[in-house]
Amino acid sequence: MSEKTTDALQTAIDQALKADRPRLAKYLSIETVAAKHLGIEETVSVIEQSLQELGAEVEVWRDIPGSNPFVFGTLPAGPNGNSDKTLLFYNHYDVQPAEPLDEWDSEPFQLTEKNGQYVARGVSDDKGEFMLRLSAVKALQATGGLPCNLKFILEGEEEVGSPHIEPMTKKHGAALAADAIIWETGGKDADENFQVTCGVKGTASFNVTAKSAESDLHSSLAAFVDNAVWRLVQGLSTLRGPKGEVLVDGFNDGVKPLTPTEQAAVDQLPFNEEATRKNFGLKLPLLSDKPAEALINRPTITINGISGGYEGNGLKTVLPKEARAQLDCRLVPGQDPRHVSELVQQQLDKNGFSDLHVSYNQGEPAFRSDLTDSFVQTAVATAHEVYGDAVKLVPNAGGSGPQAPFFEAVGVPIIDVGSTWAGSGAHAPNENVRVSDYVQAARYTARVLQNFGEK
Amino acid sequence: MSEKTTDALQTAIDQALKADRPRLAKYLSIETVAAKHLGIEETVSVIEQSLQELGAEVEVWRDIPGSNPFVFGTLPAGPNGNSDKTLLFYNHYDVQPAEPLDEWDSEPFQLTEKNGQYVARGVSDDKGEFMLRLSAVKALQATGGLPCNLKFILEGEEEVGSPHIEPMTKKHGAALAADAIIWETGGKDADENFQVTCGVKGTASFNVTAKSAESDLHSSLAAFVDNAVWRLVQGLSTLRGPKGEVLVDGFNDGVKPLTPTEQAAVDQLPFNEEATRKNFGLKLPLLSDKPAEALINRPTITINGISGGYEGNGLKTVLPKEARAQLDCRLVPGQDPRHVSELVQQQLDKNGFSDLHVSYNQGEPAFRSDLTDSFVQTAVATAHEVYGDAVKLVPNAGGSGPQAPFFEAVGVPIIDVGSTWAGSGAHAPNENVRVSDYVQAARYTARVLQNFGEK
Repeated sequence: MSEKTTDALQTAIDQALKADRPRLAKYLSIETVAAKHLGIEETVSVIEQSLQELGAEVEVWRDIPGSNPFVFGTLPAGPNGNSDKTLLFYNHYDVQPAEPLDEWDSEPFQLTEKNGQYVARGVSDDKGEFMLRLSAVKALQATGGLPCNLKFILEGEEEVGSPHIEPMTKKHGAALAADAIIWETGGKDADENFQVTCGVKGTASFNVTAKSAESDLHSSLAAFVDNAVWRLVQGLSTLRGPKGEVLVDGFNDGVKPLTPTEQAAVDQLPFNEEATRKNFGLKLPLLSDKPAEALINRPTITINGISGGYEGNGLKTVLPKEARAQLDCRLVPGQDPRHVSELVQQQLDKNGFSDLHVSYNQGEPAFRSDLTDSFVQTAVATAHEVYGDAVKLVPNAGGSGPQAPFFEAVGVPIIDVGSTWAGSGAHAPNENVRVSDYVQAARYTARVLQNFGEK
Repeated sequence: MSEKTTDALQTAIDQALKADRPRLAKYLSIETVAAKHLGIEETVSVIEQSLQELGAEVEVWRDIPGSNPFVFGTLPAGPNGNSDKTLLFYNHYDVQPAEPLDEWDSEPFQLTEKNGQYVARGVSDDKGEFMLRLSAVKALQATGGLPCNLKFILEGEEEVGSPHIEPMTKKHGAALAADAIIWETGGKDADENFQVTCGVKGTASFNVTAKSAESDLHSSLAAFVDNAVWRLVQGLSTLRGPKGEVLVDGFNDGVKPLTPTEQAAVDQLPFNEEATRKNFGLKLPLLSDKPAEALINRPTITINGISGGYEGNGLKTVLPKEARAQLDCRLVPGQDPRHVSELVQQQLDKNGFSDLHVSYNQGEPAFRSDLTDSFVQTAVATAHEVYGDAVKLVPNAGGSGPQAPFFEAVGVPIIDVGSTWAGSGAHAPNENVRVSDYVQAARYTARVLQNFGEK
């Protein structure tokens, strides 16, 4: 690739981004909050038209019961269709609620450019990312053609846990067939390293409840009557060691140690304890002396919330009849969400707390691409080309997402790359991306497609 | 005491109760809810007039800052003032809120007679009891005279924890001087035994709080960031054994074993496990194989309520920044409420949870009269005279009350006797006393005064 071609590509990217900006603004102006069932059809129309303008064939899948529509697009390499490589882009068109509204400095559903940033709900997660991908495709079409076949799949329920991804991938796996998948999200870490992330942690969410009596009782009866809150507190406390160790038999069965390549990737990840402590206002010692590795490869058990008995102001000397907690586990490859919640029940039973009841809510398994795969290598090499030395290969994110059912259906590596930075505030007020990152991510997207198509 | 005298007394009691019924109805018609600051002055007026009608000197003490007024009355023996014995009656004029209103079968603040019961808020706890004591005094005055000097003290904040009793007894201890005290409440147990109860358990109420960060965080960070709810759950779990044992060093220091008399009294108390399990809908094994003794003499630690993190419906994978619990301890003689809460903090520190913060709310020490005291013996002997064999001497109630500051100021035995039964529902809808119990309790009151005055 000569300097001349590179310059022509950049000019085309700049032109495409400029031309596409009104469409980006329109897409962001729709309040597509899945949790509120808002704006779904209007958003689907914008996506459909946007893909069609590039020449894509578009299908809107409405055949998964209870699901928001999936939008699926195919766009052949070309102008003359001459690649045997296909890449699938995953994005989602729903966004988080904008609340709390009074913490926004501008209108959440109006694209605002300020201090070198685009600000709007969804500009980082994930509407902006989809639109920059389309601009990158347009730039490629304007400079020699699309170097590979593309597929696009967009869902509208990512922010509510992607409850219909699995039935969709089971039903439409053949249509989704590709040689590699680029996932949503990703970008630069707190030290401005561009991350090529190759997977997600899994989750298992479940409730634990206790019941000791038919009604709340006077606490004088504690002399001989047990108490649901005590049962819950004492049962839960047996599940976790003081440093966050998960004390559930069989919990780690099936988990493999990191491969040498994964371990090497983890070992070069930075962790700034001082900045982390300050940003989050942490009051307690860290639970791990290898926090970067723990985020990637340590399974966890977390009480998300607990309640029981009298929670008002003032005093009430009550003996509570019932108590409940919501927990989640973050999982690594080899762990099954539903099995994990069964193991928790078994452990409580073994520990003398068979009166506590575990009920599984939902979950998704972890996923990690093979870091030695050639597509991962291409993604990393392209990152160095665009971002220089400040590139990190990350085996998987600390967060979760429905990558496992995609891998099951398509069977190819998945990477997360995007335009976010450490201050993007994906689910917070004043969600933003830096304009320079947006441009750079479009370039990265175009160059990855070229390098992938050429191999 | 001849049969003839007894009959004359009963006739006088029946007449007094009949004559006093409109006053009972008026007293119950005032919604004297301390928690709502309702009806205080009107209620004080009714008490003042009622005592004056019997010939008592009445003072309304308004000199304790922040307190509802105390009403204090003195009534000499007589007609001709000839006893060196003085008995002090303690009652309270405030009542619990009537809510939930829709669970009442009649108007809560209207005396209703139905199925042999008087029904109204306060008829059992404690307005009815005060009025039956006045009727007993009237009957004695009509049949040979009052056999001892009487004092009356009424407070208006018992249902909110008697926060001003201690300053009052410190200030007015001399005025309260007496040879014995009859407390509010008491009556018949579930097996229809009339109880002469000689004290109360103590309480210590405190909060325990945990804070781990300045904001709630994403639960993926649980890989290395600790969690306030886990800290609270794990810290609290170290304070109590599986059978309710309090695992706090020094907690039982100063507690003496039951005396042989106390032990003998405890040993003859009935406990119907089947009925208790059924009434309360208990789901778990009892924490003690001597429940009757435990209720009287086992200190406890109870989580009254706990909360932290996400408590809504649906899922939220949050790492909570803070958590809190409210606890109470029920105490026995020899334990100091404030010291107990300090010991809990010390134990948490020792157990590795110095980040948990214990803050004392309020409390009152336990109190137990000397069961071998002659007044206690008189009360029991009189109970057998009025109630036959079905009489139990109870060293102290399972519940609490501000008896300790009275004992400190006056230094004499205190007994709880009254007109309630197991179904009175003191703090519940349809609070009631059985009319026959009400009459019997008036007779018991009159006979205790006679037997006490004669000695």
